[in-house]
Amino acid sequence: MRIIVDVMSGDNAPLEPIKGAVTAAAAYKVEIIMVGDEKVIAEVCADNEIKLPQNVEIVNSDSVITMEDHALSVVREKADSSMGVSLRMLADGKADAMVSAGNTGALHAGSTLVVRRIKGIKRSAISTILPFENPTMLIDSGANTEVTKDQLEQFGMMGSIYMKKLFNINDPRVGLANIGTEPTKGTKALVEAYEYLSRSEMINFIGNVEGKQLPFGVCDVIVCDGFTGNTILKVTEGIAMYVMKQIKGVMTANPLTKLSALTMKHQLLALKASFSASEYGGAPMLGISKPVIKAHGSSDAEEIKNSVRQAIAFLSTGLIFDISEAVAKQTSERAEAGNE
Amino acid sequence: MRIIVDVMSGDNAPLEPIKGAVTAAAAYKVEIIMVGDEKVIAEVCADNEIKLPQNVEIVNSDSVITMEDHALSVVREKADSSMGVSLRMLADGKADAMVSAGNTGALHAGSTLVVRRIKGIKRSAISTILPFENPTMLIDSGANTEVTKDQLEQFGMMGSIYMKKLFNINDPRVGLANIGTEPTKGTKALVEAYEYLSRSEMINFIGNVEGKQLPFGVCDVIVCDGFTGNTILKVTEGIAMYVMKQIKGVMTANPLTKLSALTMKHQLLALKASFSASEYGGAPMLGISKPVIKAHGSSDAEEIKNSVRQAIAFLSTGLIFDISEAVAKQTSERAEAGNE
Repeated sequence: MRIIVDVMSGDNAPLEPIKGAVTAAAAYKVEIIMVGDEKVIAEVCADNEIKLPQNVEIVNSDSVITMEDHALSVVREKADSSMGVSLRMLADGKADAMVSAGNTGALHAGSTLVVRRIKGIKRSAISTILPFENPTMLIDSGANTEVTKDQLEQFGMMGSIYMKKLFNINDPRVGLANIGTEPTKGTKALVEAYEYLSRSEMINFIGNVEGKQLPFGVCDVIVCDGFTGNTILKVTEGIAMYVMKQIKGVMTANPLTKLSALTMKHQLLALKASFSASEYGGAPMLGISKPVIKAHGSSDAEEIKNSVRQAIAFLSTGLIFDISEAVAKQTSERAEAGNE
Repeated sequence: MRIIVDVMSGDNAPLEPIKGAVTAAAAYKVEIIMVGDEKVIAEVCADNEIKLPQNVEIVNSDSVITMEDHALSVVREKADSSMGVSLRMLADGKADAMVSAGNTGALHAGSTLVVRRIKGIKRSAISTILPFENPTMLIDSGANTEVTKDQLEQFGMMGSIYMKKLFNINDPRVGLANIGTEPTKGTKALVEAYEYLSRSEMINFIGNVEGKQLPFGVCDVIVCDGFTGNTILKVTEGIAMYVMKQIKGVMTANPLTKLSALTMKHQLLALKASFSASEYGGAPMLGISKPVIKAHGSSDAEEIKNSVRQAIAFLSTGLIFDISEAVAKQTSERAEAGNE
């Protein structure tokens, strides 16, 4: 197995991705390919006394995709970037999976245009595991602002296979993000989607799920368009941060509360950490023909290492094979139904 | 001033709305009209030793809109409901404002069809004040799942007038709910709306606002379609509840943390209460030609009383007059611009 780490990506590049790649190389029996500026990597390794293990290889790249770059720059003027070179190597079979903490839009666009989708998959999706009462996949969490009902069905299918394979959930429950539980709620498109998903044999559809139920384990996969998904993701992040800030205010209100807060300091820090969506690793680009994992922009070495582990699990469970089979089965069944 | 309280509405009807109406009648120099089943009201008052003050009048109604009823039932088979009778009285000038804790969809539909919109207002909106770092109006928070850019502009205008008049905010900052701050983010409709709102002279538009910024006082009014608004509202509610539940878990983890939690019990309860959106009263139906306030379904007497106070403030600040003037000015200016 050959896993690429885009070491120029994320807020803490290149040091943390380099450290993450090196610890992953030591921990797992895989080949790690660090893609980035050779000179910079050599300098950072020298400055930080990092010795590269034998199973780490460096591939040079000449530029970096920034957060401000347009999504399509990765296939155009910045095809020579660490992300662009990584995607090209993946597409050419020179590696089996890749991890990047860079620009999400560029990573999604590049995955689709360079690595390409699985045959029969209409849209690939950014899939985030929300750290709720039980791990819950939000798909799409930002790639496609508008989607059709059959794309939602495919999201549900891909999310189900992921949750089954990587979280051992038998027959994952799929909910449709909506503003009410009744089938008639939401936009016209959502009412139609509800009806369509209800009849699907590909997924275990449990109906509409509202935002207030979301954290309490009512389903394993939430399907939605990328606009709604990204809204859910960012409001979740904002409100969790806000509530924790208020709690901090309560705890530092006076000397007595400050003293009391000390007794639960560790648990509170752990709780705060659990709200950062990184608990379950990065966000896989589901529907792409090779595993592409988007690590968080703020990833440290540990998170990069976890994303490499996630890429390995992605590969070794045969997820992409399962998705290909499911979509092929669907296509042939619907073609037959059409011929009858 | 004559204010209607729909005493058959909400989870705690009729006792809490009756108590709320009676305390409001005692607190404020207004006439209170309780609309509901006369017999039931008499029984509840007798059972609870509630004596009606002189400025309380009872108007009989024969049925009740439930949470399961279709929104349009209030103008059809249940026009004789407490909500239907209240709306009709308001429309006929027999009262100046109304408060109901009932079915939101029915209250919005009934307000639009019976009481009617302000002339020139294309859509009325349910407007919720979110209890964040500063009070922030979310408009539309659930009435219209799909809206146009000029409807969003009117939402911004109405929200601005409300925040100016009722919260003394000079030149309220209006943000557009979106999944990124750049003008190019979101759906095609949102990109167009951004451009349109940027050129508006009716509102102080500050650009796109993301979910993660939302609680931290970046704007005073957030405009969006009702689907996005309701998603924001319900995710906010869900996440706040979830985080508080986790905090409770930390605090009751062991005898030491339990003891410590006692030192901050009052502050924590106050914090929890502040997340219930009721801190700033009910949700006004902005754009309707008379004040209609939707109190929370779970309202107790205190919240009903606060909603009556809110209705009084709504009336005494001349909000509806200001909205009418603003929309008339807009209409004539655009007509002139069109003639040039």
